Amino acid sequence: MKNLEDYVESIIDFPKKGIVFRDVTSVIGDKDGLKLAIDSMQEKLSNIEFDVVVAPESRGFIFGMPISYNLNKSFVPVRKKGKLPRKTISKSYDLEYGSAVLEMHKDSVKQGDRVVIVDDLIATGGTLKAIIDMVESLGGNVVRICSLIELVDLKARKLLAGYDIVSCIEYKGE
Amino acid sequence: MKNLEDYVESIIDFPKKGIVFRDVTSVIGDKDGLKLAIDSMQEKLSNIEFDVVVAPESRGFIFGMPISYNLNKSFVPVRKKGKLPRKTISKSYDLEYGSAVLEMHKDSVKQGDRVVIVDDLIATGGTLKAIIDMVESLGGNVVRICSLIELVDLKARKLLAGYDIVSCIEYKGE
Repeated sequence: MKNLEDYVESIIDFPKKGIVFRDVTSVIGDKDGLKLAIDSMQEKLSNIEFDVVVAPESRGFIFGMPISYNLNKSFVPVRKKGKLPRKTISKSYDLEYGSAVLEMHKDSVKQGDRVVIVDDLIATGGTLKAIIDMVESLGGNVVRICSLIELVDLKARKLLAGYDIVSCIEYKGE
Repeated sequence: MKNLEDYVESIIDFPKKGIVFRDVTSVIGDKDGLKLAIDSMQEKLSNIEFDVVVAPESRGFIFGMPISYNLNKSFVPVRKKGKLPRKTISKSYDLEYGSAVLEMHKDSVKQGDRVVIVDDLIATGGTLKAIIDMVESLGGNVVRICSLIELVDLKARKLLAGYDIVSCIEYKGE
């Protein structure tokens, strides 16, 4: 039987030279890999109470929605600027070159909501930090951050100190 | 008890004047709406055999992944140009102004695979046509197209004649 990490393909020099890209499409492209990934992430949420899954466009949707369905939670998408039709709040975050803007609907997270943020991969944590800021500005409490993959050397846990972070596969020293 | 269509918010003049935008975030933003949406789509797939769900970035991921998990199928994302790390095939499709390019991994659909394409909303069918062309060029058979919402007046069924299309909510005459 394959382990979860056996399903992850590592692509050298994508999207540019020097980067090893951890490909989650190879995980979900296999029905057993897909089930194992979702079950493994859910297992990491089994000991907390929460109300809503928040996940960023677009790979966060892949993992966040099955978890929402299975655990009977609502789902809030975080999207790039201009995609959401109702009133939004926004937060810019730094990319390697320049910056980008993320948005959430203003009425998506309510005062006191217990929020789990779901994504496919934690790198520097910059995107997650922007999402946390938005969730908290709406009055939500981020009770856990759950990712399939974590690139440990990029030290998201330092940037996100004080938050409860869980991941299923850790890559180090690369 | 609310019906599925009660969860859809209609936003006037988004993304531009004259368009009524059918918002699916209001459906999934309610845990009962989310469950009803996924269950209703799955119900429309209960009488066919298939191997893989193919869905386009990014709202297709929202509905395609829970269905994949629940029915134990693999999931293939269709993405915008440059997002997929392995060898891809691509197809350009027309937008109102200009065109855009969609990509799939070359090894994502295999010869003889029975494919269900899932999306949130069927409008003109242009995106779906591009996806069908890619799936068929890889040797897959599109056995059904399943959408939460269909804008009937935009006549996707004419463009996609011969394909089996199912949707849960139809809007007409607007």
